[in-house]
Amino acid sequence: MALLPSPLHFSTSHITTSTVVALCVFFTLICACIIIGHLLEENRWANESIVALLLGMCAGTVVLLVTKFNSNRILIFSEDLFFLYLLPPIIFNAGFQVKKKQFFKNFTTILLFGVIGTVISFCLISVGALLLIQRIGISNLGIKDYLAIGAILSATDSVCTLQVLNQDETPFLYSIVFGEGVVNDATSIVLFNSVQSLDFSSIDAITALKLLGTFLYLFFTSTALGIVVGLLSAYIIKTLYLGRHSTDREVALMMLMAYLSYIIAELLSLSGILTIFFCGIVMSHYTWHNVTGSSRTTTRHSFATISFIAETFIFIYVGMDALDIDQWEKSKASSIGTSVAVSSTLFALVLIGRAAFVFPIANITNCIKKRESTKIEFRSQVFGSITKPLIEAVQPRHLKPSIFDSTDNPEDLRFQLLENNAPINQQSNHQPFQRRSRLRLLMSYPTTTVHCFWRKFDDKVMRPVFGGRGFVPFVPVSSSSAEAEEIS
Amino acid sequence: MALLPSPLHFSTSHITTSTVVALCVFFTLICACIIIGHLLEENRWANESIVALLLGMCAGTVVLLVTKFNSNRILIFSEDLFFLYLLPPIIFNAGFQVKKKQFFKNFTTILLFGVIGTVISFCLISVGALLLIQRIGISNLGIKDYLAIGAILSATDSVCTLQVLNQDETPFLYSIVFGEGVVNDATSIVLFNSVQSLDFSSIDAITALKLLGTFLYLFFTSTALGIVVGLLSAYIIKTLYLGRHSTDREVALMMLMAYLSYIIAELLSLSGILTIFFCGIVMSHYTWHNVTGSSRTTTRHSFATISFIAETFIFIYVGMDALDIDQWEKSKASSIGTSVAVSSTLFALVLIGRAAFVFPIANITNCIKKRESTKIEFRSQVFGSITKPLIEAVQPRHLKPSIFDSTDNPEDLRFQLLENNAPINQQSNHQPFQRRSRLRLLMSYPTTTVHCFWRKFDDKVMRPVFGGRGFVPFVPVSSSSAEAEEIS
Repeated sequence: MALLPSPLHFSTSHITTSTVVALCVFFTLICACIIIGHLLEENRWANESIVALLLGMCAGTVVLLVTKFNSNRILIFSEDLFFLYLLPPIIFNAGFQVKKKQFFKNFTTILLFGVIGTVISFCLISVGALLLIQRIGISNLGIKDYLAIGAILSATDSVCTLQVLNQDETPFLYSIVFGEGVVNDATSIVLFNSVQSLDFSSIDAITALKLLGTFLYLFFTSTALGIVVGLLSAYIIKTLYLGRHSTDREVALMMLMAYLSYIIAELLSLSGILTIFFCGIVMSHYTWHNVTGSSRTTTRHSFATISFIAETFIFIYVGMDALDIDQWEKSKASSIGTSVAVSSTLFALVLIGRAAFVFPIANITNCIKKRESTKIEFRSQVFGSITKPLIEAVQPRHLKPSIFDSTDNPEDLRFQLLENNAPINQQSNHQPFQRRSRLRLLMSYPTTTVHCFWRKFDDKVMRPVFGGRGFVPFVPVSSSSAEAEEIS
Repeated sequence: MALLPSPLHFSTSHITTSTVVALCVFFTLICACIIIGHLLEENRWANESIVALLLGMCAGTVVLLVTKFNSNRILIFSEDLFFLYLLPPIIFNAGFQVKKKQFFKNFTTILLFGVIGTVISFCLISVGALLLIQRIGISNLGIKDYLAIGAILSATDSVCTLQVLNQDETPFLYSIVFGEGVVNDATSIVLFNSVQSLDFSSIDAITALKLLGTFLYLFFTSTALGIVVGLLSAYIIKTLYLGRHSTDREVALMMLMAYLSYIIAELLSLSGILTIFFCGIVMSHYTWHNVTGSSRTTTRHSFATISFIAETFIFIYVGMDALDIDQWEKSKASSIGTSVAVSSTLFALVLIGRAAFVFPIANITNCIKKRESTKIEFRSQVFGSITKPLIEAVQPRHLKPSIFDSTDNPEDLRFQLLENNAPINQQSNHQPFQRRSRLRLLMSYPTTTVHCFWRKFDDKVMRPVFGGRGFVPFVPVSSSSAEAEEIS
C-alpha cells in the first residue's frame, strides 16, 4: 500500500485525453482491420495491408470532417514511436520466423542485392537528381543534399513487399526480398551517415576505403551483437532452466533480451535492424529449443501477433497520413508544377535505380540460383511436378520487377498474388541452363561447404553449450493443455 | 517502398537518446530481476518484488553517482505511462487468471470490504487529518483538501499484497484481498471525484444520496462495459472462427479488445480498472474457450508475461524513486519536524482507518465465511485432514492483520509466507461455531442460489451464443506442437 504511488490512482481524469482518443481510434481500427481482413481472406485482390490503408484513409476523412478541415492527425507519428516500438518487433519476428536454411543458402545473392545494389542505386539516383532537378529550376541544394537524397531513396522498404509474398509458397523470393531489405537498410544507413560526415572537398580513394571500412565494421559488429545477445539468452535459459518455476519468466526473458539487443545497438550507433534480425535467428535456433512446450507456442505466436499489430498500425497510419492537410498546404506554397516535376523525376530515378541493379544482378546470380533450383528439381521429378504453362509464362517476366516495386504499382500486386497461388514449379524452365552447371557448381560450392562446416561445428560445439533441437529434454505440450484446463 | 515513410529510416541517430538509455537500463534491470528472482526462488524471504525494489534502489544510487547528485531519474514516471500502459495489463491478467468460482462465492464479502470499508476508512482519515494536522501547525488546508486526503489514502494498492499471496495456496485470502482492491479503487475514485465537485456549503441527505447514485452508476456501467466488450469478443471469435486462418489474429483481437475496454472506460470517465477486470473474467469464461489450442496457450502465458513485466517495471521504478534527490530537497524546504509529524500522523491514520473496518467487517463476514468453511470441512473429513496446531495458532491471529498491512510491516511478510506454506486447515477450529449455522445458512443462501440460477442461465442461453467450455469443438494442442516443429 505504501510502496506504490497511490495518489496517482486518483488522477485518472488527468490522463492526456488526446492520447486516449488516439489509442481508442487506432485500436478500434486495428480490430476492424483484422475482422474485415479475415472476411476478405478468400478475395485475392485484398489483404490486410490494403484494408488497413483504406480504413486509415476513411478514418482520416472522418477526422478531417469532424475537426472541420483543421487537421487529420490524431496521433503524431514520432520517430521514437516508429523506431523504438513498431519496427523492432517486426524485424525480430521476421528473423525469428525466417526459414534459416533458405536464407543462408541465398546469403551471397542477398549480400549482392543488398550492398552492391544499394550502392548502384545510390549513385544513379544522386547523379540523376543532380542533373535533372537543377534543370527544373531548383538551385538551392548542394552536392551533399543530392547525395543524401540518393542515400534515402536507395533504401527500399520490404515490409510492404513482404505483405504480398508468402514464405511458405515462394520461399526463395521471400528470403531474397526480405534479406535484401535488411542488408539494404544497413547499407543506406552507412551511406547516409558517411554523406553527412564526409568532407566533399577532398574525395579520394582513401575516403572510399574508409566508407567500405565503416560499412564492414557496422555490418559485422551489428551482426555479432545480435548473435551474442541471442546466445546469451540461450545460455541463461538453458543453465537456469527457468521454465521449472514459471513459463512466463522464460517468455519475458526472451522478449526483453531481444528488445535489449536492438536498444543496445541503437545506443552504440549500430544498425539495430541487423542486430535484432540476427538475434531473432539465433533465438529461434537455440533459445527456442531450450524452453518448455508452452513457452514455445507462446513465444512463436505472441511474437507474430505483436509484429502483426505493429504492421497493421503502420499501414493504418500511412492511410490516414495520405490525406494530411498540412502537407498538401505546404506543397501548395511552392509551385504545384515544380513539386509534381520533382516528385515524378525522383520516382522515375528510383525505378531506374532499382532496375539498373536488379536486372544485371539477377542475371549474375541466376548462375548460383540454378544450382539450388536443380536441386529442387530432382525432388520434384520424384514427386511428379505439375507445370502450369500460364503461370510459367508470367513468372520469368515478373520475377524481377516484383522484387523492385510491387507496392508502387498496383498491377504488380496481381502478379504477386498469382505467384503466391502458384506452386514452385518455375524450376522446370531452368532445364536449358543445366549445361552451364560447371560454373554454377563452382560458384555455389562455397555456400554448401560453409553450410557443411557449420553443421559440424553446430552439432559438436554450439548445441552442447547453448542447447537447441535435440539437445534439451523436451517437455511435452500436453502439460500446458493440462495447465490450461486449470483456469475457469 | 513509396508507401512507408522511408526517410525516417535515416534518422536513427535522432531518436531521443535519453529514451533509449532509460529503456536500456529498465529492460536490463528487469532481466536481472528475473534471473536473480529465479535463483532466490527457494528463499522464503525474497521474492521478485523485493529483488526489483532493491535492484531499483541500487540502480538509483548508481545513476545518482554518475550524474553527480544532480538527479536519479532517468525516466519520468508519467501518469500516462502508468495508467495507459502498465496498469491495464496487470488488472486484465488478474481478471483473466482469477479463480472465478472462489471470487464470486466471496462477492458479498468483497463488496462489504470494498465499499463500506473504504467509506469508513475515508471518514476516519479525513476527520483525523482535520483534527490532528491543524494541531501540528498547518492551517492553509480547507475542508475539501482533508476530504481529498481521506479519499486518496483510503485506497489500498493490492498489487504489492498480492505479490506475497498465492492464488493456489490461499485462494480465499487471495480472492478477498484482490477483489477488495478492485472495488476499493472504484470507490475511492468516486469519493475523490465527488469531493472535488461537491459544494460543501450545503451538505445534506440529498448530496449523500447523489454520491451513492454516482457510485452505483459508476460501478454498474463500468462492469457492464467490461462484460459487453468481453462478450463481443467471444461472439466475434466464435462466429468468424478466425483461428481457421491464423492463430495470431485471434490473439491480437483478444489483446486489442481487452485494451479497448479499458480505453473506452477511461474515455467515458468510468473506472477502467473495474471494466478491464470484468472484461478479463468474461474473456476467460467465454472467449478463451472459442480459440484454437495454441491461442489458448499463447494468450494465457502472454497475458501473464506482460503483466509480470509491468509489475516488475513498477517495482524497479519505485525502488529508484526512493532515492529521489528532488523530493528530499523539497521536504527540506519545509521544516523536517513538521513533515515527519505529518507523515507519521497520516500513516497512523491509515492504519487506524484500515483496522477500523477490517476487524469489524471480518467478524461480520465470518458468519458467511463459516458456511463455506463447513462445506470444505465435510470434504476434508472424508479425505482425512491433518491439523497442524502451530499454524492454527498462528493463523487466527494473523489472518485479519495480513489483509490490511502486509506490505507496510516487514514482520507480516513472514507470517504471510508461513500461511502460504500452510494447507488450508483452519476450518477445523470453526467447529464450535456450527451451532450458529441457521443464521449462516440464511446469509449465505443468496450466493448459492444466485450461483445455481447463473449456472442454468449460462448453460441454456449464454454458452450456446458466446461459446465456452464444451460448446466449441476443441482443436487439440498437438496441432500447435506440430506447427512448432516447423520452425528451424
